[in-house]
Amino acid sequence: MKRIGMLTSGGDCQALNATMRGVVKGLCHMYKDEIEVYGFLEGYKGLIRNNYKILKAEDFSGILTKGGTILGSSRQPFKLMDQPTEDGINKVKAMKETYKKLKLDCLVVLGGNGSQKTANLLSEEGLNVIGLPKTIDNDLWGTDMTFGFQSAVDIATQAIDCIHTTAASHNRVFVVEIMGHKVGHITLHAGIAGGADIILLPEIPYDINSVVKALEKRSKAGKGFSIIAVAEGAISKEDAALPKKKRKEKIAQRAYPSVAYEIADQIKDACGCEVRVAVPGHTQRGGSPDAYDRVLSSRFGAYAAQLIKEEKYGRLVVLKDNDVTDIALSDSAGKLKYVSPQDSIVLNARALGISFGDE
Amino acid sequence: MKRIGMLTSGGDCQALNATMRGVVKGLCHMYKDEIEVYGFLEGYKGLIRNNYKILKAEDFSGILTKGGTILGSSRQPFKLMDQPTEDGINKVKAMKETYKKLKLDCLVVLGGNGSQKTANLLSEEGLNVIGLPKTIDNDLWGTDMTFGFQSAVDIATQAIDCIHTTAASHNRVFVVEIMGHKVGHITLHAGIAGGADIILLPEIPYDINSVVKALEKRSKAGKGFSIIAVAEGAISKEDAALPKKKRKEKIAQRAYPSVAYEIADQIKDACGCEVRVAVPGHTQRGGSPDAYDRVLSSRFGAYAAQLIKEEKYGRLVVLKDNDVTDIALSDSAGKLKYVSPQDSIVLNARALGISFGDE
Amino acid sequence: MKRIGMLTSGGDCQALNATMRGVVKGLCHMYKDEIEVYGFLEGYKGLIRNNYKILKAEDFSGILTKGGTILGSSRQPFKLMDQPTEDGINKVKAMKETYKKLKLDCLVVLGGNGSQKTANLLSEEGLNVIGLPKTIDNDLWGTDMTFGFQSAVDIATQAIDCIHTTAASHNRVFVVEIMGHKVGHITLHAGIAGGADIILLPEIPYDINSVVKALEKRSKAGKGFSIIAVAEGAISKEDAALPKKKRKEKIAQRAYPSVAYEIADQIKDACGCEVRVAVPGHTQRGGSPDAYDRVLSSRFGAYAAQLIKEEKYGRLVVLKDNDVTDIALSDSAGKLKYVSPQDSIVLNARALGISFGDE
Amino acid sequence: MKRIGMLTSGGDCQALNATMRGVVKGLCHMYKDEIEVYGFLEGYKGLIRNNYKILKAEDFSGILTKGGTILGSSRQPFKLMDQPTEDGINKVKAMKETYKKLKLDCLVVLGGNGSQKTANLLSEEGLNVIGLPKTIDNDLWGTDMTFGFQSAVDIATQAIDCIHTTAASHNRVFVVEIMGHKVGHITLHAGIAGGADIILLPEIPYDINSVVKALEKRSKAGKGFSIIAVAEGAISKEDAALPKKKRKEKIAQRAYPSVAYEIADQIKDACGCEVRVAVPGHTQRGGSPDAYDRVLSSRFGAYAAQLIKEEKYGRLVVLKDNDVTDIALSDSAGKLKYVSPQDSIVLNARALGISFGDE
Repeated sequence: MKRIGMLTSGGDCQALNATMRGVVKGLCHMYKDEIEVYGFLEGYKGLIRNNYKILKAEDFSGILTKGGTILGSSRQPFKLMDQPTEDGINKVKAMKETYKKLKLDCLVVLGGNGSQKTANLLSEEGLNVIGLPKTIDNDLWGTDMTFGFQSAVDIATQAIDCIHTTAASHNRVFVVEIMGHKVGHITLHAGIAGGADIILLPEIPYDINSVVKALEKRSKAGKGFSIIAVAEGAISKEDAALPKKKRKEKIAQRAYPSVAYEIADQIKDACGCEVRVAVPGHTQRGGSPDAYDRVLSSRFGAYAAQLIKEEKYGRLVVLKDNDVTDIALSDSAGKLKYVSPQDSIVLNARALGISFGDE
Repeated sequence: MKRIGMLTSGGDCQALNATMRGVVKGLCHMYKDEIEVYGFLEGYKGLIRNNYKILKAEDFSGILTKGGTILGSSRQPFKLMDQPTEDGINKVKAMKETYKKLKLDCLVVLGGNGSQKTANLLSEEGLNVIGLPKTIDNDLWGTDMTFGFQSAVDIATQAIDCIHTTAASHNRVFVVEIMGHKVGHITLHAGIAGGADIILLPEIPYDINSVVKALEKRSKAGKGFSIIAVAEGAISKEDAALPKKKRKEKIAQRAYPSVAYEIADQIKDACGCEVRVAVPGHTQRGGSPDAYDRVLSSRFGAYAAQLIKEEKYGRLVVLKDNDVTDIALSDSAGKLKYVSPQDSIVLNARALGISFGDE
Repeated sequence: MKRIGMLTSGGDCQALNATMRGVVKGLCHMYKDEIEVYGFLEGYKGLIRNNYKILKAEDFSGILTKGGTILGSSRQPFKLMDQPTEDGINKVKAMKETYKKLKLDCLVVLGGNGSQKTANLLSEEGLNVIGLPKTIDNDLWGTDMTFGFQSAVDIATQAIDCIHTTAASHNRVFVVEIMGHKVGHITLHAGIAGGADIILLPEIPYDINSVVKALEKRSKAGKGFSIIAVAEGAISKEDAALPKKKRKEKIAQRAYPSVAYEIADQIKDACGCEVRVAVPGHTQRGGSPDAYDRVLSSRFGAYAAQLIKEEKYGRLVVLKDNDVTDIALSDSAGKLKYVSPQDSIVLNARALGISFGDE
Repeated sequence: MKRIGMLTSGGDCQALNATMRGVVKGLCHMYKDEIEVYGFLEGYKGLIRNNYKILKAEDFSGILTKGGTILGSSRQPFKLMDQPTEDGINKVKAMKETYKKLKLDCLVVLGGNGSQKTANLLSEEGLNVIGLPKTIDNDLWGTDMTFGFQSAVDIATQAIDCIHTTAASHNRVFVVEIMGHKVGHITLHAGIAGGADIILLPEIPYDINSVVKALEKRSKAGKGFSIIAVAEGAISKEDAALPKKKRKEKIAQRAYPSVAYEIADQIKDACGCEVRVAVPGHTQRGGSPDAYDRVLSSRFGAYAAQLIKEEKYGRLVVLKDNDVTDIALSDSAGKLKYVSPQDSIVLNARALGISFGDE
């Protein structure tokens, strides 16, 4: 009899359920159903407060295609982990106590960068922990791909597709804001997939004059409309050059609800053309996982089950060169995988004539 | 040889191309390809400026599924039709001249309420005009259904679906703003289809206390999340009671980019719960038409061709009790089809326990 | 406290769960959760064998978008209802006993034509019964629309869309077989929505020479490919002229797995062109309901709850001129709603130049 | 001025247009529109017969999402390339003459295994050739991914999704036949993504007794339904053991239209349960490319343009470890990339408890 704890932490995304199903199907297969699964509710909060439900194999039936997470999730920032809760509870101690009280053999953590840092901390504290790389942002260091990413790209691309027909019919410039505060992977992929003319990313600061020039070039070539895909965290060269603190202050003081509106106004001022903004927002992390994510997360889950069987703990399951494998949690913790201006895909996009606003 | 002018006017929507294809396929079938089609560019603007392209039957091949409009569109408000253009041109006179210069047998206008008012004016001025009921809002008086509506409902519903999984995973209240400034048909349908708990429409002013009460009722029943579908033009009882001018002033001064944000803040203040906003925006009028709209618009187009064959002009093609038929343009012009609180669908929604914020 | 029995009978379709959710949400709203729901498993089989599960309100949470039926279904032909089961049980008697043993206030039956005939029989036997019009075929007499139909049309249309690009790329004739043994509504709608050139329905017998002529006309007009949408029950004029018994014999002896293959071979022989067959089959009744069906079935369900509240039994919930209302089960029982060659939609399709193979 | 010939060869698939758009956008960007593109019609047939159309940059606008190929395609088997046409034309000679007559700088070939063999032959004959890896089967040796594959997996997965709800509602076994005569990549991916219980591939011969045992195991565990994903070329151990000629004969004599029906009958005989078959067929290669394929094919196209710029010919564009790069056409020609029973993904699937019918 194996006793497994499981939790989903951080912003929700597609394929959380599919991944958990993979873990449990894998364990049921290997241990001939001799397992007990404790699902902690609302991420680490449930582990801290010993708030869980016992899950049976059938609870994972039919959830392969179901969005969200049957366990609920919450954001528990890593940097607050050494702070007590409002009830004065020491979080790390509480989590260890829950783990021990339930006599868990392993804790499986589905989470992104911050959540895996906490997972690594718990591993260093002596718990058996396995991490699974969840995030629509695909910014987890050490894996080629996280689950949720491709499904988010699909939704962002569909949004651009819809905007495309409207933009073309009305000869408008459209600024579509896509999720990604620190990294631009979704925007880059959805921008290419949606046929965007300009792509602005946090990693490649833009010059608004360069953006305007790219628009004017299209206009001169007789193209009446343009699509600009903008990451939430896109930043101007000017702002990027500020010291971190000043930059944060400036962004905090921004009059606009988000960067897309600011860029739209700058373009309107410079070109005098009709500019509209679209912000698909939270829709990008919801709904059913696509086929790609379902394959990936099923594989991740099955592999996690095998790690448990082999009692190989403190590991993060990752995709490397199309193989599912594992790395040390400590190797990934605290590092983000950014878009590099030298990435093959960025160069391909430039070769297509897509502007990154930095020319 | 029949000479047909055609234009698409107002906000774009799905199935504009499908409808034009229907008209042209119908004409080609009846006149054995002996037709000439003048497609005016960017709506009435093209008719005013004699700016068109001659379209051949093959230009309509393969556009059944294509979103947007191959002719482009623009908004030319009816109330400005008697004002000259910035070049000093009398618009109505110019449109009549274009019609006569090209020796058109008929002008086919795909447009919504305002556009059909202009179509009716041109009909009264002696031109042969046929109107086709385009709008995602389904607010054209005299037809059970406009093309574009069902596709817009699909997209709005998908947005709510995506939001649903996120809301459930994080126990949040989500306010989803759906298109419709004056009428709430899209919000009503997408709200029911997406499983919204509260639906706020322009036609049924809400009381924020009633909204909060509905949320609290769900919360007490152990439901951790709620979805509120809000039409762009949703209005509070308080604002609805103001004289029209004051109301407009108040809305114009609103600090929020749209009503959904205002409602979200009011709920946050009242409940202290986590509230998020999603605004799918222009995506709702873009992309490919769904099967329903393709059938409807193909039928509308074919019927318009028959009206031309019968030289029955000054008519708006409509759907009545599942039959495609026609009414006088003058009967529809200037009237909007609102959601009535007594509509069967509203009563059905109330019977399901959906709150309209007016109890 | 209201005690409600519920079952889903016949071929499964989209929106069965959405409809049951509507009924239960409606009842919970009206009776403030003072209800008990007995869900009979696998349709009438469960009622006959007193095989059910007690369902709680939360069992209906989150199933609005879920395809299939949480109760399971089976086909229990009406004409065998007066025959005992293999265990020698009198079916009608057994169903009445179950109803009485559980002290039900009402039995809600989600089913198509045959299932509603049984519902009517039970009503005549003194049970309180309410029927809900389920079928992808939209062939239930007395309602403008059944739930499941529009979703099936969507899937069939998507199949034709996919086939379209292949047909065009390879200059092929494609015969796409669409569900509908006795009635052609799905084929007619999906055929128009998918841009089919020829549509063959059970209600409009075809002449293969007429089909070939329509293909040759396209070929002469330079169109390299053609799409033929064929209902499962499409029939040649020759076969339609046979006495019913002979016709059945002939069809039973057919060498082909389905009519599409036979037609494909006849075309190949006549034209010498490349002809392919596609049979989307059971996919047409599976998957999530679309927005249209979710609205319709939610309304149907809410209305059924109101009928229960009003103790108005022996009724079938229907859609009439966009209003949800009810008719006597006995009025609908035993009648099918066929496509009529005089239907507005058939005339519209002919006006587009679509051939029905009968010219 | 660069003069480029382009053709699409073999079975059509999604993203052919997207890839050509990528090539042309890339070339326009690099050569400032100083290019001429000759699009040969219907694959190598157009090159043999000097049948082409001159394409302008705008012909590639808006085709990113368009399925099929604007050039048409045909199958011209490599093994017949040294046979004259029915008009007595030497094919290879004719292709070289067309190339020279049009003074092409390069020929771009979008095709699968057979087509790239011909591309390599032309390269060896001295033409400047660049190959782009097209095929839904993802069986081209030397690239991690071909365009078309992921979109085909999406459609096959949707088909399984639809079948899933029906199978579950009626407690049926469903055999879903998925494209892939020689290789099982699509079936493997769609099988995992669709939650199939058994997956049968050409590369892993099955034993029908093992399949039946897997079904019985599910049945004993209380699971009323099962999904079997079968590749077109799935083969029994018995047949796989036959000499190649005998095997072909046996398959040719098979009474069933396809392997899925044979397997279904064998299961029915062994289990006595209700078994149904679904064959999504050609739908799997049609319709719009998904976001993944649009990114991949845009990158492939842009990279091909760069190879032309660098005059680096005789190359096949490939994806290797997430980078787009190139290999010699001669390295790939004539080799297929099969599923290996040792592939990480196969092991993951087995760890989930999925049966390959070979245990």
